[in-house]
Amino acid sequence: MTERTLIKDLSAREDGPVTVAGWVETVRDQKKVQFIVLRDESGAAQLVNPAVREVASGAEGTAADGTAADGTAADGTAEDAARQAAAVALTESITALSLGTFISVTGELKHDERVKLGGLEVKIGDLSVAAPSEPEAPIAADSSLDKRLDYRWLDLRQPKNALIFRVQTTLEHAWRTWWVENGFVEIHTPKLMESPSESRAELFQLDYFDLGTAYLAQSPQHFKQMAQAAGFGKVFEISPVFRADPSFTSRHATEFISVDAEMSWVDSHEDVMAMQEQLLAAGIAAVKEKHGDEIRELFGIEVEVPAIPFPRIPLAEVHTVLKESRGYTVPREDGDLDPEGERQISAYVKGEFGHDFVFVTDYPTNIRPYYHMRDAETGLTKSYDLIYNGTEITTGAQREHRIDELIANAKDKGLDPAGIGEYLEFFKYGVPPHGGFGMGLARVLMLLLGEQSIRETTLLFRGPTRLAP
Amino acid sequence: MTERTLIKDLSAREDGPVTVAGWVETVRDQKKVQFIVLRDESGAAQLVNPAVREVASGAEGTAADGTAADGTAADGTAEDAARQAAAVALTESITALSLGTFISVTGELKHDERVKLGGLEVKIGDLSVAAPSEPEAPIAADSSLDKRLDYRWLDLRQPKNALIFRVQTTLEHAWRTWWVENGFVEIHTPKLMESPSESRAELFQLDYFDLGTAYLAQSPQHFKQMAQAAGFGKVFEISPVFRADPSFTSRHATEFISVDAEMSWVDSHEDVMAMQEQLLAAGIAAVKEKHGDEIRELFGIEVEVPAIPFPRIPLAEVHTVLKESRGYTVPREDGDLDPEGERQISAYVKGEFGHDFVFVTDYPTNIRPYYHMRDAETGLTKSYDLIYNGTEITTGAQREHRIDELIANAKDKGLDPAGIGEYLEFFKYGVPPHGGFGMGLARVLMLLLGEQSIRETTLLFRGPTRLAP
Repeated sequence: MTERTLIKDLSAREDGPVTVAGWVETVRDQKKVQFIVLRDESGAAQLVNPAVREVASGAEGTAADGTAADGTAADGTAEDAARQAAAVALTESITALSLGTFISVTGELKHDERVKLGGLEVKIGDLSVAAPSEPEAPIAADSSLDKRLDYRWLDLRQPKNALIFRVQTTLEHAWRTWWVENGFVEIHTPKLMESPSESRAELFQLDYFDLGTAYLAQSPQHFKQMAQAAGFGKVFEISPVFRADPSFTSRHATEFISVDAEMSWVDSHEDVMAMQEQLLAAGIAAVKEKHGDEIRELFGIEVEVPAIPFPRIPLAEVHTVLKESRGYTVPREDGDLDPEGERQISAYVKGEFGHDFVFVTDYPTNIRPYYHMRDAETGLTKSYDLIYNGTEITTGAQREHRIDELIANAKDKGLDPAGIGEYLEFFKYGVPPHGGFGMGLARVLMLLLGEQSIRETTLLFRGPTRLAP
Repeated sequence: MTERTLIKDLSAREDGPVTVAGWVETVRDQKKVQFIVLRDESGAAQLVNPAVREVASGAEGTAADGTAADGTAADGTAEDAARQAAAVALTESITALSLGTFISVTGELKHDERVKLGGLEVKIGDLSVAAPSEPEAPIAADSSLDKRLDYRWLDLRQPKNALIFRVQTTLEHAWRTWWVENGFVEIHTPKLMESPSESRAELFQLDYFDLGTAYLAQSPQHFKQMAQAAGFGKVFEISPVFRADPSFTSRHATEFISVDAEMSWVDSHEDVMAMQEQLLAAGIAAVKEKHGDEIRELFGIEVEVPAIPFPRIPLAEVHTVLKESRGYTVPREDGDLDPEGERQISAYVKGEFGHDFVFVTDYPTNIRPYYHMRDAETGLTKSYDLIYNGTEITTGAQREHRIDELIANAKDKGLDPAGIGEYLEFFKYGVPPHGGFGMGLARVLMLLLGEQSIRETTLLFRGPTRLAP
């Protein structure tokens, strides 16, 4: 392993020999001195080299500033001539560097307050090119989003973009740690399914040996419920799901990472919400602690750890509030919210309660799937959406676990129970009451970091017109 | 939330009121007393109820043993009659319980050394049926594997099978924690690809809008390398991958969870091996600490934390050892190992070094993909396989990061560079030297627990003839 020092760790290191490695962000090739800004995954530092443009004639060969390239006084021997030749070669190799080239450099670290970039520089001793870049970069930081995504691996070298995925790492690890410490089991449910997971709409399908057609899972819904019938108690999964969704909005993708949990013995959706708000608060607290300063610097955002409990407002009341406090009537006939309604209720909650999150609860059955449990008294579903900074990130619910009710609900929705036979099997041999949620990872990151599209917060976005790189 | 006590926590609890919930494993419905063995995700406990078969005539109604059902002396009031009726109803409901039914029970915990199952029992006060099971269980513990997989959610109620996935949870969390603490970034690479990830063989494909055909990823290989060109440094991913592989062995599946890591600035495959052995040791140590006792009890296996470093043997030497020490010549012309060769070298290493793992290194180019780096001196690839208890679980390598060499290697393999154009793009704008590995999660679990097939250690197995449940 190249024993390199991460650039962020240079400031804590004493002056002396050091190896750093990364890619060339800029080169300033001046007559007497050359500067490279080298970036790695942790930061950027200035490398410096006194330019030696040619081997001086005779044995007195010296650099432009009168010292040999390595800083020692010229001594006029053959050894010195070789050193001079090496110095010229180094200078020429720096002149030839194209931006983006990965190099490793061994040199002398020197702290110097006058250096703007981190108050230190590395005087280059040895420079090794790992793989050169073509001279012309195909994108710049201000290229269009679509162009940037064409060269996503270069786009991700932008410190701001790379930070998104270090934040993702911290967020997911905090979530999983919370789940593990609270007795949840991690499951990996199959993405190849014999029958559609929710409806036949927007399903990718493929040929599957002699079995005919397989479908790609739209969510782990069926199988995380199956784990309840299996007696697993509490489960979680973070995994890709697939929707043949022709939408082109900033919030939709054909493949995305779904964050799912499901647990037994809930009394209502309230138990699911109580779990999810603890999970989110733990995740965001970890992000603030580890990346709060970088996020402030690169995104101009102060990460706020949400207070628990999050506000909860029944959907019917949301409509009243929107009308009376925001002058907004949702232009939908089905009673659901639209994106503007989500933004408005979020703005209302932020103003009234100072909170970035709001649970909208108790949706009517017509806009919820058949497997959401219905409240016997109100006739409404025991379900919720979670809205974060103006955009929905989650649907959660207590599930109907009583097979007779489940079949009745399906029929009520016009579904033929025969079409969901595989799913119904899970309920025949006993199942505890249970509930859970699904949450879009890229949406959470988008809203946490104030980005405009999940295309920015997905490593490699997939949409109806994008399948590469 | 039902405020239940997990059964494993009963032993530490004082005698008194308690609520437990789970599924009915057995019922012993005796004339004078009824016993239920209730199981939840943490264990099993005995519930007991004095049978009250009918309300005694008149006010003296008593149970068969002369006390009222709740244990107080019968006092002959109307209240007592109601209590008696309730006791009869409870008795009847227990008689009617089918195995597998999920129930929650509130009662009195009593520690009693005479009770074989955990030295305690719960006297049932109130019993509530969440969802009844059909009377006939479709499988038993000794049903055929295929039959068990048909009803996997019931099969997973077996404590041994459920433990596999708690072990999985611990293993993965320890791995991710190791990676996070060592500066790795978690990535989620897309499973929908425009071009095949390795070869066109064994690829699932699907229609993708106007873009034509999409392929399901066989591995995150392309994209974890792309993350190196992006300057991410070190990355990991645990995610599903897909192979349209018609094999029916105990080690193959059409969908499985791949554990992947990739890191920059390696000097050779040795750096990758050094990372992987630390990772494995950390994971297995966590499993031993958290589940060692249960694994011993249910699998009859003593979990061994592997010593570091693992033995390393070049492939050429493996063949010599097999011939000379085991009398085994691998019946293959290409020089690769076969499953018997893997078992034999593993047995040899266990005998010689007492180790469960062995890295087989330095494979010739004819049995390695073009993107494995070749050693300029030996002409062999800088790659390895990792064999664990007789079965290969990993291929790892330093990758060829120099585009000219990469193209030459591809041509040498008879590949048209145009066919891997998208992949080659990643190498045009600079890339550091890098290497990594992919590891099959279900294989590791199978070998750790001494199981015979990955079908046992996969939540829901997918093979050429299995797509459900």
